[in-house]
Amino acid sequence: MRLHADPTPNSRGQQSDHTSLKDASYRLERQQHWLVSKIRGLDFPAYQSVTCDLCPKSILRSGPSSLSFRSHTCGELRSDDAGKKVTLCGWVQYLRQDLFVILRDFSGLTQILIPQESPSTLKATLCNLTPESVIKVTGTVRNRPVGQENKMPTGEIEVLAENVEVFNVCQKLPFEIKDFVKKSESLRMQYRYLDLRSSQMQKNLRLRSQLVMKMREYLCNVHGFVDVETPTLFKRTPGGAKEFVVPSREPGLFYSLPQSPQQFKQLLMVAGVDRYFQIARCYRDEGSKPDRQPEFTQVDIEMSFVDQAGIMSLVEGLLQYSWPAERGPLKAPFQTLTYEEAMRDYGVDKPDTRFNMKLIDLSQIFLSTEIEFLQSALGQPGGSVRAVCVPSGAVRTEPFPVAENAENVEQKMCFCATREAWFESAVKQRSTELIQTLPSSDSLFCSQCPLLGHLRLQCAKLLESHGVVVRDPSAFHFLWVVDFPLFLPKEDDPEELESAHHPFTAPVPEDTRLLYTDPHKVRGQHYDLVLNGCEIGGGSIRIHKASEQFYVLKNVLKEDPGLLSHLLEALDSGAPPHGGIALGDRAPSIRDVIAFPKSFRGHDLMSRAPDLVSEEDLKCYHISVKMPTEQGREGK
Amino acid sequence: MRLHADPTPNSRGQQSDHTSLKDASYRLERQQHWLVSKIRGLDFPAYQSVTCDLCPKSILRSGPSSLSFRSHTCGELRSDDAGKKVTLCGWVQYLRQDLFVILRDFSGLTQILIPQESPSTLKATLCNLTPESVIKVTGTVRNRPVGQENKMPTGEIEVLAENVEVFNVCQKLPFEIKDFVKKSESLRMQYRYLDLRSSQMQKNLRLRSQLVMKMREYLCNVHGFVDVETPTLFKRTPGGAKEFVVPSREPGLFYSLPQSPQQFKQLLMVAGVDRYFQIARCYRDEGSKPDRQPEFTQVDIEMSFVDQAGIMSLVEGLLQYSWPAERGPLKAPFQTLTYEEAMRDYGVDKPDTRFNMKLIDLSQIFLSTEIEFLQSALGQPGGSVRAVCVPSGAVRTEPFPVAENAENVEQKMCFCATREAWFESAVKQRSTELIQTLPSSDSLFCSQCPLLGHLRLQCAKLLESHGVVVRDPSAFHFLWVVDFPLFLPKEDDPEELESAHHPFTAPVPEDTRLLYTDPHKVRGQHYDLVLNGCEIGGGSIRIHKASEQFYVLKNVLKEDPGLLSHLLEALDSGAPPHGGIALGDRAPSIRDVIAFPKSFRGHDLMSRAPDLVSEEDLKCYHISVKMPTEQGREGK
Repeated sequence: MRLHADPTPNSRGQQSDHTSLKDASYRLERQQHWLVSKIRGLDFPAYQSVTCDLCPKSILRSGPSSLSFRSHTCGELRSDDAGKKVTLCGWVQYLRQDLFVILRDFSGLTQILIPQESPSTLKATLCNLTPESVIKVTGTVRNRPVGQENKMPTGEIEVLAENVEVFNVCQKLPFEIKDFVKKSESLRMQYRYLDLRSSQMQKNLRLRSQLVMKMREYLCNVHGFVDVETPTLFKRTPGGAKEFVVPSREPGLFYSLPQSPQQFKQLLMVAGVDRYFQIARCYRDEGSKPDRQPEFTQVDIEMSFVDQAGIMSLVEGLLQYSWPAERGPLKAPFQTLTYEEAMRDYGVDKPDTRFNMKLIDLSQIFLSTEIEFLQSALGQPGGSVRAVCVPSGAVRTEPFPVAENAENVEQKMCFCATREAWFESAVKQRSTELIQTLPSSDSLFCSQCPLLGHLRLQCAKLLESHGVVVRDPSAFHFLWVVDFPLFLPKEDDPEELESAHHPFTAPVPEDTRLLYTDPHKVRGQHYDLVLNGCEIGGGSIRIHKASEQFYVLKNVLKEDPGLLSHLLEALDSGAPPHGGIALGDRAPSIRDVIAFPKSFRGHDLMSRAPDLVSEEDLKCYHISVKMPTEQGREGK
Repeated sequence: MRLHADPTPNSRGQQSDHTSLKDASYRLERQQHWLVSKIRGLDFPAYQSVTCDLCPKSILRSGPSSLSFRSHTCGELRSDDAGKKVTLCGWVQYLRQDLFVILRDFSGLTQILIPQESPSTLKATLCNLTPESVIKVTGTVRNRPVGQENKMPTGEIEVLAENVEVFNVCQKLPFEIKDFVKKSESLRMQYRYLDLRSSQMQKNLRLRSQLVMKMREYLCNVHGFVDVETPTLFKRTPGGAKEFVVPSREPGLFYSLPQSPQQFKQLLMVAGVDRYFQIARCYRDEGSKPDRQPEFTQVDIEMSFVDQAGIMSLVEGLLQYSWPAERGPLKAPFQTLTYEEAMRDYGVDKPDTRFNMKLIDLSQIFLSTEIEFLQSALGQPGGSVRAVCVPSGAVRTEPFPVAENAENVEQKMCFCATREAWFESAVKQRSTELIQTLPSSDSLFCSQCPLLGHLRLQCAKLLESHGVVVRDPSAFHFLWVVDFPLFLPKEDDPEELESAHHPFTAPVPEDTRLLYTDPHKVRGQHYDLVLNGCEIGGGSIRIHKASEQFYVLKNVLKEDPGLLSHLLEALDSGAPPHGGIALGDRAPSIRDVIAFPKSFRGHDLMSRAPDLVSEEDLKCYHISVKMPTEQGREGK
């Protein structure tokens, strides 16, 4: 295995004085390898399996078996390969009747035939293998006897073993790897390296890798984006309650782990980088909120000299380009709704547009109602009474559990159903006339918008649990939501405004003048990308004028502009118009596409992180732990 | 700019009821765009500028001006483009004689001709521009009048302005952007967004991005590697003095930011991922050491079923594939030296092989010396007296400042020079005969190896400062160093051993049995990649047997194997043979290829990080700051 002589014949002579025969043969092999790669040139076609005339070993190929002990993966042999001598490496999936070893790697399974008349050691070695042991087998591919083929991709062949090397004997396992074994979530996380051996997780990790690669190709090679890394040890954002702190060795000074590279990407535009992207690691300390990953990645994009339509087209092209071929082509442009339309029709700013059940405006019907909360709803500026109509709602005979997540539901919600079903008292008076306009089997719920948005999804789920087809699970409905309000009233002080997204979003051009008169009416050049009801991305055109940014910070948001002085200075030094987007999946299912997720509570169950650190080790950071006391538990 | 209607004609009718003419035109434009991208298919050739017949706007192209306000970049117009109407966006480099605006973007400069007979506003707007203001200019390309061409890539043409839009007026700057203006390092860091506008930094960031992209293509597309992200919030390594800690919301529990994904990448091999890579963010808290970036990235690679030769070939191919074409082809395989050879010939384990000046063994000459420290050196097992011979050393007439970084230099070093120069007393007795064997202008230094390795480099530098050509500054000498000792005596307790690299490195196969008898003699399957005397990568074949790993941890290194129980368990559950490497540039020059480096002291001078955090904000992490007191300063 050692390589210690100078292998280039014409270089300046550090010829090893103890070159062994083995070394020399290795050297030669590597030289041959390089000759071949030179012949093939530098443009290796992806995954092409080139066999080298000089040296028939697998080490000379590109593709998934290049440079490896194996000649083929466990998933690729077909009846065309019959007669070939091959070497496979992998994990013992199981043994069958002392006749077969089923060998597995990331690509699939191959049946190894144990020769019965073989030298006793070979047979004994193979028959004694424990499941999940790791071996190398050399043998000859042959077609299975007629009638013994099966449906596996390699089901037509088997490999007659001639030689075996056992790399690693597997001891007892906490669970079996077979896909069908159900494991507890915490056990899966603790032994993640076993869980990842399942064919589904292998597929997921590879799909994610390929998707990201295609995205990079599109951004870098098609549109000239520059992949720039930005720091993750950064300054703490004032009031950045969701930022982890990292103590430095200077007393009292802390870095923080940023929630996104927002400031850096804008500064890169000011720096003239023109087109930036990064698959960026982001951090968010959501404390006790369950099932949020404390670190995640996003596809982070920023562009100069572009408008909203440009970014939206870029992202549509990005998704089309990187969309897995087996899922069929993706249609673009995507549907676009304004925030107003989304709220009106779906009661939510990220509607699931795979099914209809849009909200219906019943304000006219209730104009002269005496029901107090409906009166009050209608009395508010822009107030309305709406309803969601559930087709086939009567499939369920008990009441829908509409109140599940609603506070003070009596006040906000009333529902009614068909002639055949039950009525709720509050709207009984009016319901008869309503119901006459509906198909007899539908249910109707009336309420205010945000609650109805939630209710619409809940009804869909309930109908599906009763076997009604509401959504196509294989459909991918991408949707843009635009024209968000730039500011929203603060929850704890509705007289004050806060940014709907972040303070750097530019107003819609025709609303800019309203910034100085009616800021609550200003729409922002913000766009959200929604997939099947999940927000998978969001971005905006940014403010690129220091004076406007200063006004927004100081006069609208009442924040101290001094805390962002470096950004304001930058905007005063020649800032181009710019905008961008960040794409990322924050759904709970993210566990299934990342290799080492944290548990619901943010723990790494495998290594047991976070963990105790000694006072001694904390000394250099000038911090000490303050354990909460029994009474007056602090810090929660 | 707003897009709020449903643009797919056949979808289920969320037709906006307030579609304006402007919206409709935008929608149409985007639809056309998508038609064109469909026609072109999904395989966009990189950087191809396809003009669309349906819509001549730049929004329809791929390449660096796609989707942008501009039609061309400032660096691409040539005399072939004369007559074209173009739109350029960029920064005002300077104005000349109220006649020209020189416009700059990342790609270069274009001369804009200010029309003298133009409507007064256009001329006034252009003539009033301050340098670094950002504008959009539309105009017609024309050849410059004969004799006014210059050597710039766009020096044959100019653009006669017809329309200008000023995006951003630049206020005063702390320094000019022109490349030749020398700035202080701290000013450059504070205004990094201005510093990055220089053509050199623009080139550096783009070169780095392209290099990384090529590496990804090679690993993913040629050899089937899977890009897997691993966590950066991890468990603290026991005694991991160089790991930043991150307090969690659970009292007393901390994450840490790992120095490398070493454990994760090995676990991915145990998980059957087969081939992993990641451009990984790593963290190292080197405290007071100057000029170390606290965070950096490395190309992190791990592979199963591979040996040392395989990894070395992979890396050589990687560098060949991603090597910038303008630097000419890279020869492979690279030269390989054993650790022993490197130390013997160069006195260092990462020799700069661009020049010779190898160390000479003078032990024979000094066999019966009475010089005490030479006697003592020769008396040690394997001890020797060596010298570095400096060709043309006499070019310098004063003594070489050999003692600069050497402790106790009198004891360790002696030097002598030619007849024409001076002698040092210690070896005077023997020097005459030595010198007679040397060319008359050379200098000779004798000492022990590590010091001589340093001295060799110092001499090269000194000679170069005197105008002697020693190293070719355009040469790239890649070198493998292999067969390192697996363990080294601990500095503070030479009776005990510590890992030369890390405890997961596998021994060279023929040395494995020595592990149990003479561990200090075991060589590791470790390989370092050295470029021009800098270590740019290192890796190893790992131990893949739990029992061997346990023995190394417990019996050789005397560490508590319990702290790595998850890794030991993993090795017992079917671990393939595996190995890998990490490539990264840790040279001080790294500042010139990363966008936002930290200062020498680990500060971000732009945003002023690290920064104070209020006690209130630290409460939820259950920590408090302990400021050092005057006496007994703690934590240093």
